[in-house]
Amino acid sequence: MLTRPSKVTSIESIIDEIRGFLMIQTPAAWVQHAVCNIEVLLIDHANCEYKAASSAMSLIGKYRDMPAIQQLMTRLVREEMLHYEQVLTFMNKLGIKYRVLTASRYAKRLRNAVRSSEHQRLVDLLLVNAIVEARSCERFASLWPHLPEALGRYYKSLLRAEGRHYQDYLTLAKSMAEVVEIKERLDLFLKIENQLIETPDQEFRFHSGVPS
Amino acid sequence: MLTRPSKVTSIESIIDEIRGFLMIQTPAAWVQHAVCNIEVLLIDHANCEYKAASSAMSLIGKYRDMPAIQQLMTRLVREEMLHYEQVLTFMNKLGIKYRVLTASRYAKRLRNAVRSSEHQRLVDLLLVNAIVEARSCERFASLWPHLPEALGRYYKSLLRAEGRHYQDYLTLAKSMAEVVEIKERLDLFLKIENQLIETPDQEFRFHSGVPS
Repeated sequence: MLTRPSKVTSIESIIDEIRGFLMIQTPAAWVQHAVCNIEVLLIDHANCEYKAASSAMSLIGKYRDMPAIQQLMTRLVREEMLHYEQVLTFMNKLGIKYRVLTASRYAKRLRNAVRSSEHQRLVDLLLVNAIVEARSCERFASLWPHLPEALGRYYKSLLRAEGRHYQDYLTLAKSMAEVVEIKERLDLFLKIENQLIETPDQEFRFHSGVPS
Repeated sequence: MLTRPSKVTSIESIIDEIRGFLMIQTPAAWVQHAVCNIEVLLIDHANCEYKAASSAMSLIGKYRDMPAIQQLMTRLVREEMLHYEQVLTFMNKLGIKYRVLTASRYAKRLRNAVRSSEHQRLVDLLLVNAIVEARSCERFASLWPHLPEALGRYYKSLLRAEGRHYQDYLTLAKSMAEVVEIKERLDLFLKIENQLIETPDQEFRFHSGVPS
């Protein structure tokens, strides 16, 4: 049952698949704002990599008896921590110092819709994480051509790993619930997600809405 | 100020340094018990790798403004998670299934002696983690010649990374406190540690005392 949705061979096909999955693209206004706010973009990107690793660590710790979670999440933690290191290196090169940033509304609002009973909670968390990874991937694809060369090249290089993380989460979720349940929950979460991406957002963050 | 205690070039010199640091070696009775209880040894070893990664993740999250912690702990998390994966693979090959094991008294008793005020707490946690990593390294060195060939070879291969982790923690602690404070705290923690290793222990675990 544990098969990935499709075999991904090129960056273009990853982006096509993810854009189809997410339904809407990052608004141009967000990209323009991001390009002019590299400091916040990078600090919040580092936060996102850390949180992604941390979230996968929690799943590993909680579901020690599920080999598929152990297998896919351990690699994911290592990759997210490598990205975290790499973003810190970029920050260092650009003279950007870490400062505390409040978390965006994005992950919090998605998590608010996660069901509370044990098995349903796991399925929902995996789907939410799949969406977050997919959106990260889509943001990198939307951003990289507009960024300074070295950073743009780095963001492009992240696409493949983030695309694989999206697939890993989706694969895990699909192995744990019926097709109809997955479709129903994805419809709900994507509706919330799309609204968060398309509506005005007072805070600019890596996963924020349209800068207001 | 952030320099490692010494340049380590061979496994022998790592073991010599760590045995000098820890003062006492793993009792022969523990090694004999471990060789006959590979199932518990491996499950608890996996638990230790996960906890080591998790503990370093907490430090990264809490001390975002300390570049030295960020730099050394991110690599440590990746390495511990790789070891965790490798131990799970060994368990799988040997037909050992995960089951819940209570935590040993070792880390808990050491952490009980950690001071509570913020800066002192960090220094103490780094020293405790240095000791835990050093003991892990020493246990691998004591164990590997007595284990089945493939597992013994793997445990020998872990020595270098665990020895580096011990040095990383010690280096961080030394960069944050005066020599006299480090000596005083290490004396205290090593006294507790040595007692935990040398006294009878009802539970057999990776860091347990003499099997009773």
